[in-house]
Amino acid sequence: MPADDAKPARAASARLDRRRFLASGAGIAAGAAAAALGASVAEATTEKKFGPPGIPDWTKQLGPGVGDKPYGAPSPFEKDVIRRTVDWLTASRESSVSFTPIAEQTGIITPSGLHFERHHAGRAEIDPKAHRLVVHGLVEREMIFTVEDIKRFPSIGVVRFIECPANGGMEWRGAQLERCQYVRGMISCSEWTGVSLRTLLRETGLKATATWMLAEGADGAAMTRSVPIQKVLDDAMLCYGQNGEAIRPEQGYPLRLLLPGWEGNMSVKWLRRLEFGDQPWHTREETSKYTDLMPDGRSRQFTWFMEANSVVTFPSPERPLDGKGFYEMTGFAWSGLGRVRRVDVSIDGGRNWATARLGEPVFPKALTRWTMPLRWNGEPLLVMSRAQDETGYVQPSIADLRKVRGTNSIYHNNSMLTWHVKAGGEVENVQLR
Amino acid sequence: MPADDAKPARAASARLDRRRFLASGAGIAAGAAAAALGASVAEATTEKKFGPPGIPDWTKQLGPGVGDKPYGAPSPFEKDVIRRTVDWLTASRESSVSFTPIAEQTGIITPSGLHFERHHAGRAEIDPKAHRLVVHGLVEREMIFTVEDIKRFPSIGVVRFIECPANGGMEWRGAQLERCQYVRGMISCSEWTGVSLRTLLRETGLKATATWMLAEGADGAAMTRSVPIQKVLDDAMLCYGQNGEAIRPEQGYPLRLLLPGWEGNMSVKWLRRLEFGDQPWHTREETSKYTDLMPDGRSRQFTWFMEANSVVTFPSPERPLDGKGFYEMTGFAWSGLGRVRRVDVSIDGGRNWATARLGEPVFPKALTRWTMPLRWNGEPLLVMSRAQDETGYVQPSIADLRKVRGTNSIYHNNSMLTWHVKAGGEVENVQLR
Repeated sequence: MPADDAKPARAASARLDRRRFLASGAGIAAGAAAAALGASVAEATTEKKFGPPGIPDWTKQLGPGVGDKPYGAPSPFEKDVIRRTVDWLTASRESSVSFTPIAEQTGIITPSGLHFERHHAGRAEIDPKAHRLVVHGLVEREMIFTVEDIKRFPSIGVVRFIECPANGGMEWRGAQLERCQYVRGMISCSEWTGVSLRTLLRETGLKATATWMLAEGADGAAMTRSVPIQKVLDDAMLCYGQNGEAIRPEQGYPLRLLLPGWEGNMSVKWLRRLEFGDQPWHTREETSKYTDLMPDGRSRQFTWFMEANSVVTFPSPERPLDGKGFYEMTGFAWSGLGRVRRVDVSIDGGRNWATARLGEPVFPKALTRWTMPLRWNGEPLLVMSRAQDETGYVQPSIADLRKVRGTNSIYHNNSMLTWHVKAGGEVENVQLR
Repeated sequence: MPADDAKPARAASARLDRRRFLASGAGIAAGAAAAALGASVAEATTEKKFGPPGIPDWTKQLGPGVGDKPYGAPSPFEKDVIRRTVDWLTASRESSVSFTPIAEQTGIITPSGLHFERHHAGRAEIDPKAHRLVVHGLVEREMIFTVEDIKRFPSIGVVRFIECPANGGMEWRGAQLERCQYVRGMISCSEWTGVSLRTLLRETGLKATATWMLAEGADGAAMTRSVPIQKVLDDAMLCYGQNGEAIRPEQGYPLRLLLPGWEGNMSVKWLRRLEFGDQPWHTREETSKYTDLMPDGRSRQFTWFMEANSVVTFPSPERPLDGKGFYEMTGFAWSGLGRVRRVDVSIDGGRNWATARLGEPVFPKALTRWTMPLRWNGEPLLVMSRAQDETGYVQPSIADLRKVRGTNSIYHNNSMLTWHVKAGGEVENVQLR
């Protein structure tokens, strides 16, 4: 627990009682917690506590042997933990989004099968043997690489999030969708494996006049973005591995760019071309799209990095509370500028805040897990979380964001959310401040 | 690079030249490396370099839209990256093993769909609502928990390997199987989420006389193992999350025990019962199985932890070299006693060694990625890796292991492997020493 947790200025609400739980030792169980967290064998007499009578079938028989699933799948009982789409958001499914079920996610790694999708011309289905990456323009040696060539370079691995800048975009004008999945589910976090662009550029050389890089995808949209050379030389990667295997088709198989912490669309998928030049290209995806329309009618361009953000995934609209007693609240925080330094949580709509525990390790530009104990007495709550990153930046309210940016934007809404927990335990998305 | 890398006593072979590559800067590309790692656009004229002529179909058309795969899958071009079984190893598939394709794994997280399997009565397929965990014996309060009860406790997340103690067991008597997958593929590494047993025991209390715990599975084998209380209170966990989602059925859905670094079978899957007592139970799986038959006919019992181990996954029998030039060799190292401190690599059968780079972060009791540059001149190689963990323990040769343990064992063979890279680049598993 951070030492400053005890400062009166940030006194925890009486119901956010991690200290009480953790200090209580074995003695806690005899009271209310026992009723909440399990049942005494001596006292429990109902089927709810003991389960269905008799020995279950799965203990009385052989189950399926090994080899029936050379590539495994989740339990059929998890069939509702899936990516979801909404039909009204875009003109077609080829240029749309599917959302990660973040409310059900455990840990910080998003399963590759649940990584959110955002395509501009559908999912390119590429034969890796036929795929090439061309590097040209202001380099010493224009070169062309097979995927196998790229795998011969020295490799690195990192855990990093990818987030669509439209994550939360529907809230600018006040939409209040009833799933975390829709409200903040355009973010996923993976272990990426590949080659630093610095390493690749040792092979091609880079001319001193090169100040920008164009990245182009091999999909039907030829998705194209301009990247300043500082980012290229900082932490840009060519990735071929995701969570222990080849990148998934919907994430850019066989090769994608990764620009950690920056707008997801700039981490160009199905990467086929890198051109180096001395000015940005002002492509379609950085003029008509991915710019921020301001109140005065002008647009901000090149708003690259994803600001500090957070979400409460439990309790949440998908995951209500089930009666009084002890719970562990949890959620994510992240920042495109580095590590999450601190997450504060409120259950009274922002009047009082307590500092959450952060799951270790905290990687830069990665999902960070936070947890906070809650002893619920059945009264309604207004639950919020607020992230702070290592630059000192604090996640804003939607009101503060709107003062600067109005309500015309689609992108870069990283404001705090509020969940209204009702007396029955159901959870509603409300927009307080 | 570790500072001691430069000591003459551990001088690198001339062909293991990480320093040469990394120190060379942009100038490296003009020579041999350019031919190996890509082709100059000006010089390349073949289809191999430019790819098939014309614009590929995936750039000329829309791909599938979002939502066609609510739970995604790998590219069809990765169809050979699967778990594999061997029919001759056990009497039935319900009591057998499937192996992780470690040669193709990227990073350190094993995809859940590729996690190795070892069942004793097949895969239990459990309805989580009907599942219960009973805690009884020498506790203050015998209790029964639903899966939802367990999820209300304070949670933790860790990256840890699980390894079957029979990993490499077929080599005791000299078998030399022709895949890394069969030789060391009974290991996988996941991000596990769940509850520390210390936390659970605050709820039930623990009597001072409790020195052992029995863990029992709900599968048809009622898989049962005795665990000393020191391990229970050190780092044992009840897990419900694996790599961001519910544990997979073949890994113990909805609840498994995790004993980090210890024999995989002790991390009892489909966990339904924890009994606390004052002596071990000497169950079937710790008497007739999972004991080590010594040369004098006696058996060692309770050989719990998995010793430091390593494997070269590239080059390997599954992944030959493709002509002269620069490559990055890579593989895994791990130890059940803590962090991997160092990995040495030889390409001349153990005469000379060079120290590999370790991928960050190095988690305790987790797969650790190592890499080592290789500039191959086409001559045959004898490739080996050797792990050292933070206790100072160094991975032994098979000859040294046999001096102590003979050839009757099945379990706990953590000896070094040797890959013979032939002049054509093919790789054969040989047993040198």
